[in-house]
Amino acid sequence: TRPDRVYQDRVYFDSYSDVSIHEEMLADRVRTGAYRSAILRNSASIRGRTVLDVGAGTGVLSAFCVQAGARRVYAVEASSIAEQALKIVKQNNMETQIQVIRGAVEAVELPERVDVIVSEWMGYALLHESMLQSVLYARDKWLRPGGLLLPSRAELFIAPVSDPVVEERLRFWFTVKEQYGVDMSCMRDFAKSCIMNSDISVSPVTVEDVLSHPARFAELDLDTLTPEELREVKGHFKCSSFGCASVNALCVWFSVSFPCPDEPQLPVVLSTSPFHPETHWKQAVLYLDCPVDVEQDTVISGEVQMFASERSDRHICIRVNCAIGDENRQNKTFSIPDWSAQS
Amino acid sequence: TRPDRVYQDRVYFDSYSDVSIHEEMLADRVRTGAYRSAILRNSASIRGRTVLDVGAGTGVLSAFCVQAGARRVYAVEASSIAEQALKIVKQNNMETQIQVIRGAVEAVELPERVDVIVSEWMGYALLHESMLQSVLYARDKWLRPGGLLLPSRAELFIAPVSDPVVEERLRFWFTVKEQYGVDMSCMRDFAKSCIMNSDISVSPVTVEDVLSHPARFAELDLDTLTPEELREVKGHFKCSSFGCASVNALCVWFSVSFPCPDEPQLPVVLSTSPFHPETHWKQAVLYLDCPVDVEQDTVISGEVQMFASERSDRHICIRVNCAIGDENRQNKTFSIPDWSAQS
Repeated sequence: TRPDRVYQDRVYFDSYSDVSIHEEMLADRVRTGAYRSAILRNSASIRGRTVLDVGAGTGVLSAFCVQAGARRVYAVEASSIAEQALKIVKQNNMETQIQVIRGAVEAVELPERVDVIVSEWMGYALLHESMLQSVLYARDKWLRPGGLLLPSRAELFIAPVSDPVVEERLRFWFTVKEQYGVDMSCMRDFAKSCIMNSDISVSPVTVEDVLSHPARFAELDLDTLTPEELREVKGHFKCSSFGCASVNALCVWFSVSFPCPDEPQLPVVLSTSPFHPETHWKQAVLYLDCPVDVEQDTVISGEVQMFASERSDRHICIRVNCAIGDENRQNKTFSIPDWSAQS
Repeated sequence: TRPDRVYQDRVYFDSYSDVSIHEEMLADRVRTGAYRSAILRNSASIRGRTVLDVGAGTGVLSAFCVQAGARRVYAVEASSIAEQALKIVKQNNMETQIQVIRGAVEAVELPERVDVIVSEWMGYALLHESMLQSVLYARDKWLRPGGLLLPSRAELFIAPVSDPVVEERLRFWFTVKEQYGVDMSCMRDFAKSCIMNSDISVSPVTVEDVLSHPARFAELDLDTLTPEELREVKGHFKCSSFGCASVNALCVWFSVSFPCPDEPQLPVVLSTSPFHPETHWKQAVLYLDCPVDVEQDTVISGEVQMFASERSDRHICIRVNCAIGDENRQNKTFSIPDWSAQS
C-alpha cells in the first residue's frame, strides 16, 4: 500500500528535525561555500530586494541573502528546525530582514511576490525527495516575472565504474575455508544477489574507479522547467572506456549552477562529481546484474529515466537501459532503499 | 501502538535474510574465533553426541561442532538464510551430521533431546533482540539434564567515559561564524539535546576515553537462569576515576564465557570490552544529560536495570541511576533506536 501524501510529508519533514542532517549540510563546505559565493556574487540582483528561501532549514541561505543586501527574506521551513532558524535570526540581529515562516511552501501565504528564490533542494541523485517540485510551485506562485532563481540550472551525469569493494566482498566467502575450515564459496551467488541488488547505493566513488569521462544525460533549465516535465527526467548517454576493466556499476551524479551577472561565462557551479571534492551527496551507484569486461574505447551507451517511485512521490527511481560494447544489453530499475528520506 | 509478536518476529528474522549481517559476523574474528576455539576445546563433550544450534545462520557453528566430532547437529534457523546454510552443509559434505531445520526454535520439533546447545545469541548491550529467551526455552525443552551450554555464562560491565566526539560536534556550531559570517552558537543547546539523547549509541569507544577500570554489574549463569529472571537484569556498580576529566557518557559492554573441561580455570572468553580488540558489537554508549567533572578517585556508582522496551519485546532498554562524586545524581532510561534489530 502506498502511504498517503500527508503521512509521507510528515516522515519527510521529521527527517529534518534532528541536528545531524543540518550539521552535515553546513559542514559540507563545497555545498555551503558554493551557495554563499553565488549569493554574494548576485548581490546586485539581491540588494534592496525580496527573497524567498524554500526549505530554509537553519536559515543559513537567508542569512547569506541579508549579507548580500536583501531587504526582506521569507524563510519558509516546514520542519521543527524552523524554531532554531528563528533563534539564529535573532542572534544575528536579522529580525527586520528575515521572517521565518513555518509551513510547507505550498501552504504558506506571503505578503508579496519576491524578486529572488533561493533554495537548496537537491537530494541524492539530484531528484530524491522531489523537493524541486516545491521550488517550481513557489516559482510559479511567488516569483515576479523575470525574477532570479538560485540555482537556475541542473545537470545530470553518468559514467561506468569498476567498484573493487564489491569484488572484495564477494571474495570474502572464498577466504572462510582458510580461516575456519568451512568452505563457504557457495555463498558467492547469494552475496552477489544481495550486494548487486536494485538499491541505489549512495557512496563515494573513488576517481580511479571511474572508467570514462562523464556523460551528461539531462539538463534542467529551472527558469522554464514545468512540473510535468519534472515527472520524468530522461536522456541518452554515450561514453567510451579509458581502458581494460570490468564494469560492475554505473555512477550517477549532478551539478547545479548559479548565474553570475558580472561574468556570464563563469557561473558558480556546485558539482558532486567523483572528479571533484566529495560532498555529502557522494554519488549514486547502480550495480549491474552482470559485470562486463571492457577494453580501451569500448562504447557504453544507453538511456536513463528518472521518476518517482510508486511507493512514494518522494522516492526516486532510476531506470537504465544500456549497451556495453556491441552485444551486452542491460536493463534495470533502481530505487533508493527505505533507510532514509534525507538529502 | 505495540506491534504484535508475529510482526515483530517477521521484522526480526527478515533482518537476517541479507548477506551483509552474516558477512559482518563471520568476518568478526574475535567472535567466530572464540566460538571455534571453545567448540574444539569441548570436543570431549561433543564427540559422538547430539547438538542443537539455536539461530544457526550460515551454519558455521554447526560445522565447528562437526569438526569437534558431533554425531548429529540440529541447525535451527528461522530466517531465509537457512537455505544458504543447507548449501554450505552440502558443500562441506556434512549432510549426514547436520540437519538444517527452518523455523523458530519455539516452533520446531526435534526427534530427540540433545547433549549440547550452542548459540550465538548476543545482541547489542548483550540483551538487545532478546534472543537469549529462545536459548533458555530450547535449554528447558531440548537439553538433556546435565547437558552442555555454549556459552554458559555472561557478564555485563559499565565504565564512565569522556567522549570527545560529542564535544567536537557541539563545538562545530561555534565555528560557523568564522567560516560563513553567520553566528550559530545558539544551536549548541539544541545540538546537545539531539546528540546526548536517550538513544543507546552503538559505537566503538577508544580505550583512552574510558575513565575507570570496568565495573561488573551483572552475571548470568545460563545453566540456571530462568526466563523470569531474564525479564529484568540489574545490578550495582562502583568505579573510581583514573584522573581529571569530564564524564559525558557511560559505556556498557559484555563478555560471554565457555567452560573448558581440560582447564576449568581457563574458560574461553569472548569479550567486547573497549580494553580488548574491537568486535562488531562495539560498545553501548549512554550519554548523560549533564557532563560532570571528575578528579582522580572520584567515585561513580549506581544501579543499572535492563529490560525489554514497551514498544517491542526485542528492543532493550537500559535504565541507569547513578551518582558521580558526592552530590551529582543522574537517572536516565536509554533505548535502542528503531534503525535496526540486528546483532
